[in-house]
Amino acid sequence: MPDLRKDPITGRWVIIATDRARRPADFTRERVTATGGRICPFCPGNESKTPPEVLAYRSAGGANEQGWSLRVVPNKFPALRVEGELDRQGEGLYDRMNGVGAHEVIIESPDHMTSLSELPEKQVSDVLFSFRDRINDLRKDKRLRYIIVFKNHGAAAGATLEHPHSQLIALPVVPKRVQEEIDGSLRYYSFRERCIFCDILQQELATRQRIVFETDHFVVIAPYASRFPFETWVLPRRHGAHFAAVDAPTMHNLGWTLRTVLRKMDKVLEQPPYNAIIHTAPVQTGELDHYHWHIEIIPKLTKVAGFEWGTGFYINPTPPEEAARFLREAGLP
Amino acid sequence: MPDLRKDPITGRWVIIATDRARRPADFTRERVTATGGRICPFCPGNESKTPPEVLAYRSAGGANEQGWSLRVVPNKFPALRVEGELDRQGEGLYDRMNGVGAHEVIIESPDHMTSLSELPEKQVSDVLFSFRDRINDLRKDKRLRYIIVFKNHGAAAGATLEHPHSQLIALPVVPKRVQEEIDGSLRYYSFRERCIFCDILQQELATRQRIVFETDHFVVIAPYASRFPFETWVLPRRHGAHFAAVDAPTMHNLGWTLRTVLRKMDKVLEQPPYNAIIHTAPVQTGELDHYHWHIEIIPKLTKVAGFEWGTGFYINPTPPEEAARFLREAGLP
Repeated sequence: MPDLRKDPITGRWVIIATDRARRPADFTRERVTATGGRICPFCPGNESKTPPEVLAYRSAGGANEQGWSLRVVPNKFPALRVEGELDRQGEGLYDRMNGVGAHEVIIESPDHMTSLSELPEKQVSDVLFSFRDRINDLRKDKRLRYIIVFKNHGAAAGATLEHPHSQLIALPVVPKRVQEEIDGSLRYYSFRERCIFCDILQQELATRQRIVFETDHFVVIAPYASRFPFETWVLPRRHGAHFAAVDAPTMHNLGWTLRTVLRKMDKVLEQPPYNAIIHTAPVQTGELDHYHWHIEIIPKLTKVAGFEWGTGFYINPTPPEEAARFLREAGLP
Repeated sequence: MPDLRKDPITGRWVIIATDRARRPADFTRERVTATGGRICPFCPGNESKTPPEVLAYRSAGGANEQGWSLRVVPNKFPALRVEGELDRQGEGLYDRMNGVGAHEVIIESPDHMTSLSELPEKQVSDVLFSFRDRINDLRKDKRLRYIIVFKNHGAAAGATLEHPHSQLIALPVVPKRVQEEIDGSLRYYSFRERCIFCDILQQELATRQRIVFETDHFVVIAPYASRFPFETWVLPRRHGAHFAAVDAPTMHNLGWTLRTVLRKMDKVLEQPPYNAIIHTAPVQTGELDHYHWHIEIIPKLTKVAGFEWGTGFYINPTPPEEAARFLREAGLP
């Protein structure tokens, strides 16, 4: 009998197939590997092909020269623009405003042929530190209400360039899905006076069947109501609403943790395309007792998106308990 | 400057790219054409390869024999099962129930090599009548709260078999996205004492820039806050919450309307993969003054799904005004 499970945060129901659970080899997989070849605007020597950098970690060279290990540049074709006023207006019964915001690209390494999971541990931490630095800079602009950091890895996950990179979009409104998560957490907090994510951590650590692994600062789980096969969450043990408020030791530990999750996925799912998204509180709010920042990683293994888009009802062919077991048992060198 | 637009029903914000709008030829298109070849369980003569039919329109033959023009069968690998009790339970802080429901396939034609847009007008109407018949049968089961009818056309849109077919899933809960649409409509109704869809119809018919075409019973538009390029809605002129309550003349007109939309899309976008979903009220509710059934059609032209899934924030590279113009101007033989 299939299982219907409710996400305790958002209230979304998910169908978990249990009878004919799909294992890693059952998915048509598109292995993501860099091919090189074409001229890449993110490669060293091509610094002039991007807009001027807004941040770089470098051991040599001046701004927009070679010698960097990580570089953040505005997107050449941004979804939003920094200049101008919001100019909120009605159009009959509709509402609009100008597309004010920021859209930046984090070039994670000078090496075109690598991927985030293959970078040294320190470099992965540097990528995370660059996210923190950019968020803390951009949030000074009070027009910006939400900053989302995400990574599309592989063409099937929406990446248009293969050089390893992440993206940051700063928005003048809080996205609906983010607000739902925050509202859902607040509802639970109002009822129990506890953070729902802290409670999830406690229950998962007690039952252990959906734990992938744990570190000093993080617990990696397959969530109870996973929407997608091998959906994986990285939850900080210590409560906090803002990713960008994390201290340096925790960020270093997150580098190791994230790299380990991705390497386990690479092993079990053969270098899958994936989306990773940092879920964090709106930048203009202070600390929140009811919300808990975390990272969600979704390997792109299935295509059944139309029904899901239309209904918000997901059919997941792999029970999270099995996904967690595959990832947990994947030994790394 | 990009445009930020708010969907008046759900409150979802969408970024509409205006500077570098993408036209039909700018998308990497995967033309959907049937190739035949493999043994197809939906073809005439293979009736025994599906579970026994629950409905068929036929001019000859008995049940599960040849002679049908349309056939509805339970999905061989259903996401949900008709048998059993819901058995709602807690698991610590989580909630679950058994996957009780129905999952059926509507085989739209005996001809493997055709597609819904290429069927004769009467056959398209018959497909719609079969949806109505199945909904009206299934809703007698009071455990079922929502019945969703949708079509994935082409592998990129999630179809696993190429023989033309639609699907129906009957659920024991109302999906979150559906509930949001209904709640949003109710909010508007509470404020204005008018149906928001009726108001949208009136405004669109006055401004005309997002109208694709109109018939006696329907208006076809590109919605103001389209999430996807060439997203298209078919809105009935007459208010009603339930698709399955539509009368025969309207259903015949809907057959012509739907066929015309799909043929225009085939022409402008070169037989694109698409998802079509009937948005209708929960089956166990009566008529609602605030909700208005309609069909949403989304051609699958872009892959940027990770960010969108995570945030509910969509970046649409084609303004709906341009999409509507392309579709409006596409002449059909």
